Amino acid sequence: MNFKSDNAASVCPAVLDAILSAAPSAAAAYDDDEWSSRLDGAFSALFGHDCTVLPVNTGTAANALALAAMVPGYGAVVCETDAHIHVDECGAPEFFTGGAKLLLVKGEHGRLTPERLAAGLAAHRGDAHQVQIGALSLTQATEAGTVYTPDMVAALAAHAKARGWRVHMDGARFANAVAHLGCHPGDVTWRAGVDVLSFGAIKNGGMTAEALVVFAPDLAPRLRFLRKRAGQMPSKGRFQAAQLLAMIEGDVWLANARAANAAAAQLAAAAGARLRYPVEANELFLKMHPGEVSRLRAQGFDFYDWGDAGSDEIRLVTAWDIPPAHVAALAEALEQ
Amino acid sequence: MNFKSDNAASVCPAVLDAILSAAPSAAAAYDDDEWSSRLDGAFSALFGHDCTVLPVNTGTAANALALAAMVPGYGAVVCETDAHIHVDECGAPEFFTGGAKLLLVKGEHGRLTPERLAAGLAAHRGDAHQVQIGALSLTQATEAGTVYTPDMVAALAAHAKARGWRVHMDGARFANAVAHLGCHPGDVTWRAGVDVLSFGAIKNGGMTAEALVVFAPDLAPRLRFLRKRAGQMPSKGRFQAAQLLAMIEGDVWLANARAANAAAAQLAAAAGARLRYPVEANELFLKMHPGEVSRLRAQGFDFYDWGDAGSDEIRLVTAWDIPPAHVAALAEALEQ
Amino acid sequence: MNFKSDNAASVCPAVLDAILSAAPSAAAAYDDDEWSSRLDGAFSALFGHDCTVLPVNTGTAANALALAAMVPGYGAVVCETDAHIHVDECGAPEFFTGGAKLLLVKGEHGRLTPERLAAGLAAHRGDAHQVQIGALSLTQATEAGTVYTPDMVAALAAHAKARGWRVHMDGARFANAVAHLGCHPGDVTWRAGVDVLSFGAIKNGGMTAEALVVFAPDLAPRLRFLRKRAGQMPSKGRFQAAQLLAMIEGDVWLANARAANAAAAQLAAAAGARLRYPVEANELFLKMHPGEVSRLRAQGFDFYDWGDAGSDEIRLVTAWDIPPAHVAALAEALEQ
Amino acid sequence: MNFKSDNAASVCPAVLDAILSAAPSAAAAYDDDEWSSRLDGAFSALFGHDCTVLPVNTGTAANALALAAMVPGYGAVVCETDAHIHVDECGAPEFFTGGAKLLLVKGEHGRLTPERLAAGLAAHRGDAHQVQIGALSLTQATEAGTVYTPDMVAALAAHAKARGWRVHMDGARFANAVAHLGCHPGDVTWRAGVDVLSFGAIKNGGMTAEALVVFAPDLAPRLRFLRKRAGQMPSKGRFQAAQLLAMIEGDVWLANARAANAAAAQLAAAAGARLRYPVEANELFLKMHPGEVSRLRAQGFDFYDWGDAGSDEIRLVTAWDIPPAHVAALAEALEQ
Repeated sequence: MNFKSDNAASVCPAVLDAILSAAPSAAAAYDDDEWSSRLDGAFSALFGHDCTVLPVNTGTAANALALAAMVPGYGAVVCETDAHIHVDECGAPEFFTGGAKLLLVKGEHGRLTPERLAAGLAAHRGDAHQVQIGALSLTQATEAGTVYTPDMVAALAAHAKARGWRVHMDGARFANAVAHLGCHPGDVTWRAGVDVLSFGAIKNGGMTAEALVVFAPDLAPRLRFLRKRAGQMPSKGRFQAAQLLAMIEGDVWLANARAANAAAAQLAAAAGARLRYPVEANELFLKMHPGEVSRLRAQGFDFYDWGDAGSDEIRLVTAWDIPPAHVAALAEALEQ
Repeated sequence: MNFKSDNAASVCPAVLDAILSAAPSAAAAYDDDEWSSRLDGAFSALFGHDCTVLPVNTGTAANALALAAMVPGYGAVVCETDAHIHVDECGAPEFFTGGAKLLLVKGEHGRLTPERLAAGLAAHRGDAHQVQIGALSLTQATEAGTVYTPDMVAALAAHAKARGWRVHMDGARFANAVAHLGCHPGDVTWRAGVDVLSFGAIKNGGMTAEALVVFAPDLAPRLRFLRKRAGQMPSKGRFQAAQLLAMIEGDVWLANARAANAAAAQLAAAAGARLRYPVEANELFLKMHPGEVSRLRAQGFDFYDWGDAGSDEIRLVTAWDIPPAHVAALAEALEQ
Repeated sequence: MNFKSDNAASVCPAVLDAILSAAPSAAAAYDDDEWSSRLDGAFSALFGHDCTVLPVNTGTAANALALAAMVPGYGAVVCETDAHIHVDECGAPEFFTGGAKLLLVKGEHGRLTPERLAAGLAAHRGDAHQVQIGALSLTQATEAGTVYTPDMVAALAAHAKARGWRVHMDGARFANAVAHLGCHPGDVTWRAGVDVLSFGAIKNGGMTAEALVVFAPDLAPRLRFLRKRAGQMPSKGRFQAAQLLAMIEGDVWLANARAANAAAAQLAAAAGARLRYPVEANELFLKMHPGEVSRLRAQGFDFYDWGDAGSDEIRLVTAWDIPPAHVAALAEALEQ
Repeated sequence: MNFKSDNAASVCPAVLDAILSAAPSAAAAYDDDEWSSRLDGAFSALFGHDCTVLPVNTGTAANALALAAMVPGYGAVVCETDAHIHVDECGAPEFFTGGAKLLLVKGEHGRLTPERLAAGLAAHRGDAHQVQIGALSLTQATEAGTVYTPDMVAALAAHAKARGWRVHMDGARFANAVAHLGCHPGDVTWRAGVDVLSFGAIKNGGMTAEALVVFAPDLAPRLRFLRKRAGQMPSKGRFQAAQLLAMIEGDVWLANARAANAAAAQLAAAAGARLRYPVEANELFLKMHPGEVSRLRAQGFDFYDWGDAGSDEIRLVTAWDIPPAHVAALAEALEQ
């Protein structure tokens, strides 16, 4: 019974069907095919705003490319201390940007605020001896499993824009966030000031495609070259495009995310006071009682330890396809 | 009737079946799945030599990563003037290596020789004012549609090794080369001195995976990090691994390449004296008679102009799935 | 009366004489001159160990080159939170290394310890998703004006070496540290495990040259190329070499540093309880009483505010050439 | 009797005096001193146009920084096949630009023309698979010792600007070119379309400073950060500024260059038909008769062999301080 990662999930039928339908016949290479040509329109309709969509292979590539379009090598990106771009991408943002620095600010329950940005960066002078802050990167849903509301994003983006920074959103679990908020996807992105969104699909039932959704038209042209130069322009681009179209057409992305969120909510109710943060997406962070961790594992539940060694902290992740019986079993185990 | 590019080809059934079988159930993320764990063994068996296999998304990523493992930023890579890494990768090798330079040497029918290397690099002093040559990159089959024999590769690699250079092979059409040579794949790679091979699969019936085949064990560890940092370590790695396994198991890669080569040979016989180079793989470069180009297009044949404007030169590419009727029609048109 | 920075100091006569003697006649370019050829020998004699010396133009270049020789682009350098390489070099270490990350650990009075390293990096897993730590950078004297003893450096270097990291010492004020310690310069560098030292000269009476002193012979060859590629190989290299030779011959470097340290000690005695850290070199950090800062400025003393806005904290720096009368005047003002 | 390189020359008295006058007293660090503050004004007056001046340590740094301000990492710089930026800078342009490519076009007598650019780049498609040309770099005087007239520069810059490229001039021997042309320095730079000039001083009697002269105001801001990040912002900046001011005040730069050019002209008259190119600055390239080379060396003349091994080709360079007796002796030897 696997609660380790939504990265381990299966591929959803809609995505698989789309791949199958694109496979048997030849199609023009390098994004000149019919699937790729529909991407911009489909995402623009979804978000209610003209955007340019660039499929990539991984969330790391999406994030690093977005940041490379925003800041020069002598630039800096502000992000939360535990952000994936800082902790889990092996320096990809530094590589793609040509050496820009990530400046870390601690959030509350994973969420940055304008006040925390101001305090955390108070010592940054910004003169010629220092890197030049050029972007703010927000993770939605956050690394703590919480979600920024449209108002929260708007306040942060306003803070950024007032300083000349661009705004990136790492949306590896963007679907889970929107499913939680129940808002229009535009409300929490371009309407709130987001310039580029890394739209996650793989954790949410996709196979091998994430989408870079570019709302700021000035950033799109250079991203075409940055993407190719990063080895992220596939010759058979239709297979990435087809996955992404299948994901958003018929709102598969929201349906999948709702399933994952519902499982997380069920577990959250059972976890009670063990919860370290509000559960707003599909991740739970629990501070366990002594002995509980090994007992759960002995019962067949698999998950990651979290936090410092010996902290009795664990992470649970619910994927879109998690079997209800597994969720019920874990909820029951937690309630005992 | 499409003779533009094997990049436009369909996906072969074996690859598709492999993807389908990997999709429905969950599997450990980040190459900890059963498909990924079989890659090294399967390719080691195929090549008759221990190797490390790293799947990537594009040939550009494969090439750029291989070179980044071989040369430092102050280094240089020697390649043929028309090499894909120089002409068609938007500077990816320079990006991945941190700024290494490509030093160009003109080949004969696309093939470098030790003599051409010596002459072409005679003016390179190699003192501290200059970049330091660290690698030779060969394209197999070449950009001219010709093929290096094992002896040719061995002579070039010996030239390289005597100077302390590593040897990379860009094998976007490696299958076509081996199908032409009829040799063991190890004969023209590690036995001849190749350190890393970019093993092409996408043009040859694959979907979204190429393989970096690392024969030199000292280069493998750093490639794991370079790959992740390049955004090329997918969370659902089983879908790349499954494609690659399907391609080499049962020699699908050779069967597909033989089909493409046979079509090219049929066209070559028809093209006769128009051929600029020997046809040894699945590309043909033809110097056409005046008026012929537009007449062929009017008959429904699609292909690229090649060479300088007004040169009446064209390129024809035959993919693994090219319909025999299309080939026969074009052969007949050329014979008239 | 200037207590802002030793970077503002005059050039000492020995350095000036050396420049003058090298200027009037021609000499071979690019380090083939007689001054440059004596550098390795002179520094090897000074440190009691064979070393390679590479003159550079700035401390930033020295530090960034040293780190670039130690870690790959996917690497990381551990340093103190306030280290110059992190705060004041506009991302030069990231640029020169090709994007390596600086991992920050807070020291005590500016000094790292093995325990602080272990605690501060406990969450760093070091798997393929993360940057690979490859170097520890120590600042001697520290950013807090304190000094590492040979034992402290040895303990830190042992911690580093046990993990496969290299050790860099940013010695912008190395002379002040050695003058304070009264030890042999080798005791606090190579004997304690330092691989490369950025030997500061400019703040200490030099004009335009710092020295990269390479104790680890495996790092020297690549530094020659890294230096040239960074635009740090001057055609008239004799003017950098002559400055560095003048600085160490006759122990000018120690005499100058002792003068600066003595002035700082005189001020420290007067500052009393205002001192935030022990004064062991030529920098003082003072927590002032309300009103004192403006009163000192009104008396003609110039210096930097430090720390957060409104913290009443200041920094005082004493250069090698600070007029004794200025020091006495400030000491008297502080004692009132 | 040294005809190897003007890099070996002595430092001229005006430069030395300026350094001496800046040395004895303290001055604000990091370009806040009185010398640095006069730089922009002095060069703006000299060129008849507002410009920003950034002193650097080497010509390589000047060139690489200029190009880094002009092109992104996926960009390309067009230059002559033998350009110093390609042949003698150990990949510095690639490093500073983040991996941009140098595209080479062969000139005539070292000089590019719009026609040669058009022909040499005819095969460059410029689509997303290729690097994007963003700058043209001209060397003035050229690597062949010839000089671009203002009309020639204007025609090349017009060709560049029509394509959206910026124009850089590598003026390591700019003074020699202007001395030859007898024109206003603005005529052959900003008036002709040059955006940034690497103004050489070191070969021409300077010591350790070259000037980046930025005519295009949009490029200046980012160059401040690029320069610092490259370790090229010295704490005691007054010593670079003082050298540069001394060089242009009283037209020392032109006087020195005229002396060097006159010596070259004297040798050119003696060399006669041996000359490979017109002698317009202070470099001569001679195709010698068999036996002549060793005879000249036996007579005490020192110089570099040039071209391919066994080609009997040599290079002679005359510096600003070359003793007239040496020139006369060599002229006489050549006339025999």
